Amino acid sequence: MSKPIVYGPRYSTYTRAVIMALLEKRVDHAVVHVDMDEQEHKAPEHLARHPFGLLPAFQHGDFAIYETVPILNYIDDAFPGVRLAPADILRRTRAAQIMSVINSYGYRPMVWGIFVPRTFPQPGKPVDEKAIAEAVPKARQALQAIEDLMLNPDPFLVGRQISLADLLLVPIIHYFAGTPEGAKILPHYPKLMAWHTIIQSRPSVLETVPKVLSGVE
Amino acid sequence: MSKPIVYGPRYSTYTRAVIMALLEKRVDHAVVHVDMDEQEHKAPEHLARHPFGLLPAFQHGDFAIYETVPILNYIDDAFPGVRLAPADILRRTRAAQIMSVINSYGYRPMVWGIFVPRTFPQPGKPVDEKAIAEAVPKARQALQAIEDLMLNPDPFLVGRQISLADLLLVPIIHYFAGTPEGAKILPHYPKLMAWHTIIQSRPSVLETVPKVLSGVE
Repeated sequence: MSKPIVYGPRYSTYTRAVIMALLEKRVDHAVVHVDMDEQEHKAPEHLARHPFGLLPAFQHGDFAIYETVPILNYIDDAFPGVRLAPADILRRTRAAQIMSVINSYGYRPMVWGIFVPRTFPQPGKPVDEKAIAEAVPKARQALQAIEDLMLNPDPFLVGRQISLADLLLVPIIHYFAGTPEGAKILPHYPKLMAWHTIIQSRPSVLETVPKVLSGVE
Repeated sequence: MSKPIVYGPRYSTYTRAVIMALLEKRVDHAVVHVDMDEQEHKAPEHLARHPFGLLPAFQHGDFAIYETVPILNYIDDAFPGVRLAPADILRRTRAAQIMSVINSYGYRPMVWGIFVPRTFPQPGKPVDEKAIAEAVPKARQALQAIEDLMLNPDPFLVGRQISLADLLLVPIIHYFAGTPEGAKILPHYPKLMAWHTIIQSRPSVLETVPKVLSGVE
């Protein structure tokens, strides 16, 4: 079967999580860029891959998948290599809960509520400080929930092995930690802070640092 | 281990899906009512179970879980009986995608955008027809996506066996089908219509019909 293809920009947090899963499993793959600034994710070509116009989309042979958590689980199940879903039911459930908390409560305030307006302010317009201030308690609530779901004593979110939950969270925390709000809030969550420090040196993390963070163009 | 407990009102679509999973697996369980009209889901007792104050929450021995999809997968994995996650990777992935589409795009417009304002209009206030009209295309987009993800020829969403995706969708379509908008929209999706007709007679569906639909108080 042909090698899998990830459709999405490398700077998209969900696209990055999928690429990291492929790197962790050592799966040869291709990444096809979809430029959000150019609205390519809303063009017919991408809507055929993802009817809601979001990122990423995934293709393996003639099997196409959209929605990140199903893509991650497919990659884990379809390819050999390290298992990214914990074998233990309690750890697997906590990982699934963390992914659900990220998607339902954490991603939007941390990325769209804080990171994007802080990092890419609209030219000639003041930053909407009120909107950012409203996102802060939502981000804190999600981070507290994730901290409470983490299992100790373990380097990763739910154990000694990296999991799909780690991969989903890394790109989001990576962006969030670089904002003034993130730098101020994150130290309140010591388990998450320790996790973030350790996971920084993971090859799949280092190999996927977005240009917006590395400063390299 | 003590029998599992579901915390939530039987009229909540997500609570009903969890109860149906327990019935399908023939797991002896208890349901503890949490009354949304009385704001019991925002009370400290429930926030200790679900920090975001949503429904349902789940307890099995000393292991507590919130977020419906992780609860459903835990029930499927922890208890004997019929498997609700398809063994085949393609069917399992399609089921996961359908669950993700329900949660991210389908639930809100169908239940909160259309069913709730139509069924429980605010006393003395006109129904917000503009808000309902805005929810209709969103509901249609989600239904089209689910229809496209269904695998044929099969009585259930992704195969000959009922899956977690069927359980998550039934309570939502059940409510939606009873609204004028649902009655008008659903016939555009012939696979979903056939599915809804067949699944109506499933014992786990019949045993969990909410009083708001059965008319029995």
